[in-house]
Amino acid sequence: MKKAASYLGDKQIAVTESEAVAPQSGEVRLEVAYCGICGTDMHIYHGNMDGRVHMPQIIGHEASGTVVEIGEGVDTCRIGDRVAVRPLWFGDVHPFDKGYPHVGKEVKIIGIDAPGGMQASWTVPAYTLHHLPEGVSLEHGALAEPAAVACHDVRLGRVQDGETVVVIGGGPIGILVALVARGKGARVIVSEINEKRIEKIESLGFEAVNPLEEPLGKVIASKTNERMADVVFEVSGAQAGVDAMTTVLNVRGRIVIVGLHPQPRSVDLFQFFWSELELIGARLYEKEDFDAALELMRVGQLPIEDLITDVYSIENVKAAFEMIENAPEGIKYLVNCGA
Amino acid sequence: MKKAASYLGDKQIAVTESEAVAPQSGEVRLEVAYCGICGTDMHIYHGNMDGRVHMPQIIGHEASGTVVEIGEGVDTCRIGDRVAVRPLWFGDVHPFDKGYPHVGKEVKIIGIDAPGGMQASWTVPAYTLHHLPEGVSLEHGALAEPAAVACHDVRLGRVQDGETVVVIGGGPIGILVALVARGKGARVIVSEINEKRIEKIESLGFEAVNPLEEPLGKVIASKTNERMADVVFEVSGAQAGVDAMTTVLNVRGRIVIVGLHPQPRSVDLFQFFWSELELIGARLYEKEDFDAALELMRVGQLPIEDLITDVYSIENVKAAFEMIENAPEGIKYLVNCGA
Repeated sequence: MKKAASYLGDKQIAVTESEAVAPQSGEVRLEVAYCGICGTDMHIYHGNMDGRVHMPQIIGHEASGTVVEIGEGVDTCRIGDRVAVRPLWFGDVHPFDKGYPHVGKEVKIIGIDAPGGMQASWTVPAYTLHHLPEGVSLEHGALAEPAAVACHDVRLGRVQDGETVVVIGGGPIGILVALVARGKGARVIVSEINEKRIEKIESLGFEAVNPLEEPLGKVIASKTNERMADVVFEVSGAQAGVDAMTTVLNVRGRIVIVGLHPQPRSVDLFQFFWSELELIGARLYEKEDFDAALELMRVGQLPIEDLITDVYSIENVKAAFEMIENAPEGIKYLVNCGA
Repeated sequence: MKKAASYLGDKQIAVTESEAVAPQSGEVRLEVAYCGICGTDMHIYHGNMDGRVHMPQIIGHEASGTVVEIGEGVDTCRIGDRVAVRPLWFGDVHPFDKGYPHVGKEVKIIGIDAPGGMQASWTVPAYTLHHLPEGVSLEHGALAEPAAVACHDVRLGRVQDGETVVVIGGGPIGILVALVARGKGARVIVSEINEKRIEKIESLGFEAVNPLEEPLGKVIASKTNERMADVVFEVSGAQAGVDAMTTVLNVRGRIVIVGLHPQPRSVDLFQFFWSELELIGARLYEKEDFDAALELMRVGQLPIEDLITDVYSIENVKAAFEMIENAPEGIKYLVNCGA
């Protein structure tokens, strides 16, 4: 039977039948192959987003699949095409948005605000599809979404060849940011407190620092002969990361805020003034970031295989959530939606 | 007698004789005409910078004057030239500085870290001089320095024709920022709590808002039909300004930190993420900002006459400091150093 995973509230996930919804004009129906479990899915699972999610909600927004049915007026794909989904609905144009609908007033995320990809059959707008290049598997294609986040972050951080980059927080997004920044020619140093993640980071060829052992600013000063870093990505979402981010940069250094900070944070604004630092908020991705991510996969610059910790069948999706909760050193867990 | 004003500590200022120091190689001696009193001078006066200032210290870093003696190797000016001084010493080049010596590791401000311009005779490096254009008086030339600060802030904020700009804090620098931003073609709204300053701001043709009467974000929403602002300058140096700055911007809005925030501030980082806001620290000025400020004066885009609240003789400098302390609604007070 075709299955779907629905969040019911309070860490409850039901596996029910996936309903095949006929595509309307401009839509496409997919047979979903794989769907990644994201930090946001964990927030939903923990009930932190109950005010936004309509239960029961089919979750998942990191999906790959195959086109199986095409609605009227769609000429951008054909039956059998292998695709990744850029899961955004844009709504009406508002002058507030200045041509950036991905952060617009009305943007919605398919998989949070609307039924997601953790199901066998998924109907989505055709404009959300990005074709997987030849040689990129459906399994790897499920990581197009988080890789696009990283491409967006690195693009907004304007990382240049020869620069020194610090990534604070070495989870899935932090590691992808590190990989994309290294692809730009940067020297990348990752700050992470989990020893197993540090091992993984080092196995990918990065310098790793545990800021609990020595203050990050001191380590970066020593590693750079006091030249300090040019760009820092705050991916931890923690006050400790915010405290550290202003201590590692040289003049005109850039900080990209990637992690979620629901509460206001104490920020050393004096350092912004003193060294003319810049802070850039980055959210989601634009079309070009998905294209960039898939191109990096095509040319083999992202070692996706090393980032997939495990694949669960959709029947066992609850076990995957429990595993992530209990073993934070894992990187990316996928759900096989066709299994 | 030629006079000099020296800070002695604890709100004490002595008026003593100004010593004519013969210019060394690369230096020039000026007969100072006017020197403005800056917020930083008030900080010094209040003892907040006693750890940095070597007492007795001749203060003042907003000066204009006439060249009266020229040291060896100087071919960039002649006796009698009317000039403003860009009061920076750069020290050695450090890779940390990335070619921005005005925020470099070794930069020093002449008038804070070395004898300043509040004296009749002042010897400075020749590279600090900017010639006053014809038609710009020595009195107005004393405002080249704060006007250069404003030009720097507006340049770093990348203000464009047709944008909406909010300036939080309508003191001397805030008003100059507003004037320079208006010169770029922006609609400028100034947030200020002092009613007398609000009158001054309105007399200069700006929209003024008192955020104590209605929350700034709400006012800006109403004034812009919910389009919100493109750029905000935080010039207040207060937590209330930091709280307000993230409430007035549209997507990809820019915040320029101009005011001094000695303590860490509570900052709504979530808004940076949500709308991809940008925060830019701005300090002092570069050579081109002084050039830009003097050009704006030359073409009459800065109504300097309206910004000079009063001129004190150097003998009465203590009275000027007391006046600023007791009447914060004034804009710019000058000291006539030749009087």
